[in-house]
Amino acid sequence: MRHSPYQSLENRFRRLFALRDAEAFLTWDLAAMMPPGGADSRAEQLAQLRAVQHNLLTAPDMGELIETADGGALTPDEAANLREMRVQWRRATALPEDMVTELSRANSACETAWRTARPASDFAAILPHLERVLARIREKAKVLSQALYLAPYDALLDAYEPGGRAADIDAVFDDLVAFLPGFLDEVLAHQAVEPAVIRPQGPFAVETQRQVGLGFMEQLGFDFERGRLDISLHPFCGGSHEDVRITTRYNEDDFTSSLMGVLHETGHALYEQGLPRKWRDQPAGDARGMSVHESQSLMIEMQVCRSAPFLRHAAPILAEAFGGEGPAWNADNLVRLFTRVKPGFIRVDADEVTYPAHVILRYRLEKAMVEGTMEASDLPTAWNEGMQTLLGITPPDDRRGCLQDVHWYDGAWGYFPTYTLGAMTAAQLFAAAKRADAAIEPGIARGDFAPLLNWLRANVHGKGSLLTTRDLLTEATGRPLDAAPFKAHLRARYLT
Amino acid sequence: MRHSPYQSLENRFRRLFALRDAEAFLTWDLAAMMPPGGADSRAEQLAQLRAVQHNLLTAPDMGELIETADGGALTPDEAANLREMRVQWRRATALPEDMVTELSRANSACETAWRTARPASDFAAILPHLERVLARIREKAKVLSQALYLAPYDALLDAYEPGGRAADIDAVFDDLVAFLPGFLDEVLAHQAVEPAVIRPQGPFAVETQRQVGLGFMEQLGFDFERGRLDISLHPFCGGSHEDVRITTRYNEDDFTSSLMGVLHETGHALYEQGLPRKWRDQPAGDARGMSVHESQSLMIEMQVCRSAPFLRHAAPILAEAFGGEGPAWNADNLVRLFTRVKPGFIRVDADEVTYPAHVILRYRLEKAMVEGTMEASDLPTAWNEGMQTLLGITPPDDRRGCLQDVHWYDGAWGYFPTYTLGAMTAAQLFAAAKRADAAIEPGIARGDFAPLLNWLRANVHGKGSLLTTRDLLTEATGRPLDAAPFKAHLRARYLT
Repeated sequence: MRHSPYQSLENRFRRLFALRDAEAFLTWDLAAMMPPGGADSRAEQLAQLRAVQHNLLTAPDMGELIETADGGALTPDEAANLREMRVQWRRATALPEDMVTELSRANSACETAWRTARPASDFAAILPHLERVLARIREKAKVLSQALYLAPYDALLDAYEPGGRAADIDAVFDDLVAFLPGFLDEVLAHQAVEPAVIRPQGPFAVETQRQVGLGFMEQLGFDFERGRLDISLHPFCGGSHEDVRITTRYNEDDFTSSLMGVLHETGHALYEQGLPRKWRDQPAGDARGMSVHESQSLMIEMQVCRSAPFLRHAAPILAEAFGGEGPAWNADNLVRLFTRVKPGFIRVDADEVTYPAHVILRYRLEKAMVEGTMEASDLPTAWNEGMQTLLGITPPDDRRGCLQDVHWYDGAWGYFPTYTLGAMTAAQLFAAAKRADAAIEPGIARGDFAPLLNWLRANVHGKGSLLTTRDLLTEATGRPLDAAPFKAHLRARYLT
Repeated sequence: MRHSPYQSLENRFRRLFALRDAEAFLTWDLAAMMPPGGADSRAEQLAQLRAVQHNLLTAPDMGELIETADGGALTPDEAANLREMRVQWRRATALPEDMVTELSRANSACETAWRTARPASDFAAILPHLERVLARIREKAKVLSQALYLAPYDALLDAYEPGGRAADIDAVFDDLVAFLPGFLDEVLAHQAVEPAVIRPQGPFAVETQRQVGLGFMEQLGFDFERGRLDISLHPFCGGSHEDVRITTRYNEDDFTSSLMGVLHETGHALYEQGLPRKWRDQPAGDARGMSVHESQSLMIEMQVCRSAPFLRHAAPILAEAFGGEGPAWNADNLVRLFTRVKPGFIRVDADEVTYPAHVILRYRLEKAMVEGTMEASDLPTAWNEGMQTLLGITPPDDRRGCLQDVHWYDGAWGYFPTYTLGAMTAAQLFAAAKRADAAIEPGIARGDFAPLLNWLRANVHGKGSLLTTRDLLTEATGRPLDAAPFKAHLRARYLT
């Protein structure tokens, strides 16, 4: 039986996606199940799986198959699938294999060194490693830039955010930078005259926290026939569309961080579980990109679960589960607790108002380094100056400054902006959803998330990668990304 | 850099073994972790992983690499590795791809039908499926027979038991058949005059059972840095050498089956954890075959843990863990409990004395069916006659007769004899170990298994597949497999 070029491609991507899913489960297992002695052989399994995928994707006849696949007979969805295939193939074939190997080596060495340099706050120790990584990243950006007809930074960004362009990001980030410092002052003044936040006192048993998390996951629509909740050091959402594995970690003194972590990962999971099943083993059925993915976790965590209506619904559930009594468990106090704003040095601890400053700082610095207008050795100074400008605080050491995130030290350049693009996308989508269906907000107030989930399924999840990010957002909200809905959300939540 | 043909082969098998290990962890996950909705996509992942392995193993240039790899410069271990590579390659290339696909389809259909036919005891319903499987199996045996220069049944057996030959099996099984029925009568008469067995009364909390199992695993030498204990419906030992995953299931009314299950799987796991790490990603570093693997689980379960010295050591530990008091927890009673002999219909529930009869029956029947001297439709009658001859009982229905095991219905022909070959091998190895090191038996009596484990590491585990099964056993015990040590073991345990 002869296959058409397009059918051959679908078969190849079916194999590729099965191997990618296999890799995802082995990665989940590594974080959630694997005993320490399995690390070396697991690394080998993952490396070989990646190598096999790379070989399949860059097979000599792939280019011809891709170029001849559209004989005019493809449906629009198939054409979208082919478009996504081409993107993956172009990126995979753009880099020579020895460049990939050398970058991977530089990343590993730097990441290993970072693990000791960070706690020691020793930037000097990591600098030679970081310089090697940066040199390779610039080389990679240059080669990709030529192959993909993109500016060097955009060529890196595009791996995480297909279609993302620095020019568009600059526009919305500049808008935020003009808004945020003044807004932050207003919020701090506003919160200063509010009643003091009272922290519920633990200990909070791990099993109770787990049950509470599972309960909210179920309310939100997580399908436990196609997913699990487990424990890992760093919470994440892994597995595959049909079997989504989310993780959290528990702190017996504080249930709030684990709870919000579970809700955040549930947002990612709902997206994965809602991807179009018809396309589940093809690029068109994949999640759209990092900013849309992050928009779904922030939709659930920030837009929904830190809102007053949700927290009023959740307060008695939490009080009963943990046996909590008194003013700390009062709904208004919980709202204040979960929306408290305070500038700090650490991105992952930041609240919704100050988070964009952390991201914009990193975006500007990594872009400058990739473009060659800044060197790795300039990083500590530039970092601290940026923190002072954007948040009005200066880190006392590099551990709480430019050494805090693993991303650059592990070779992930071009990733940072997607966090705040996701936050803005979440606000824009949520505003559109509420306009489209008046049942969404009252539903949230009584723990019925079906109206919201239905809108997300129809307008985001079920679209997979059939549309570009820009078209997805435009179809769902009537316009491409802009900062206005996010600013409106912040004003409504923090100044009223 | 140019690799020698042998080096190229090592690199290819490194990739093959990493993919095989990936498959093993996904299989473990399927049984121990996966939610039901993940089944379809997991099946696809496993099928694609197998297809990729098959493609790698049957690549067009593999034959030439294998034929030119021994330029005379290989070490003896490398030559052994090449020998094992050749075996795998010959078997992989012997069958045309459409034959593999058709067999796989026939197996799946038959296995699915068996799932309802077994509880309904409906052999007629499964017969057409079984006939199709048998036809394919005969075809497979014929093609393999010609490619591997083996008799048809041996060509199937060889997949599970490399180097295993029916002529050798017939010799030792005939020896057992001449011995067992009379011996069984003697044992039953002997046990009839012993004090009645008293069953400890539950409930036995699952978490306590788990802790007891973990405690004995640790005593036996299981390395928890490189392995885990979890729960699955059917206990098994999975994962890879460097990260061995064993499973059990718990029954709150009876701790004994789970405990012996854990100890049995621990025997498999100790073998895997003791395989030669230098060869861990090569065929020479693999477990030797099913009979040696089963000998290691039966070494721990049957030779060690159902022995009186072990059970006297274990009795107070069990009584304390479960809060047990009275005569049921007395060591002598536990010895009787764990060595009770009673002919029954079901293989997996059989004791050590009657188990070989179950296996020999299946071996003779499957061999006759493969060789064409018996048809699938003859199975119920032949089965029941065999049970009457070997064990003196006749199953009341096919559910408790020829429908009880999944093996034939799932296409696993040539596997059954390895169970009893393993039991005999265990007895022969254990006798040799005790002769070699007088510290082994007194060690077991006080819960110190290091002397035994050291002997197994040196003589079995650490050999991987560097020797053939016959040479391994001859080097370790001074002679190839024979039935005498197993018979001596049974006499010593059950008639004194």
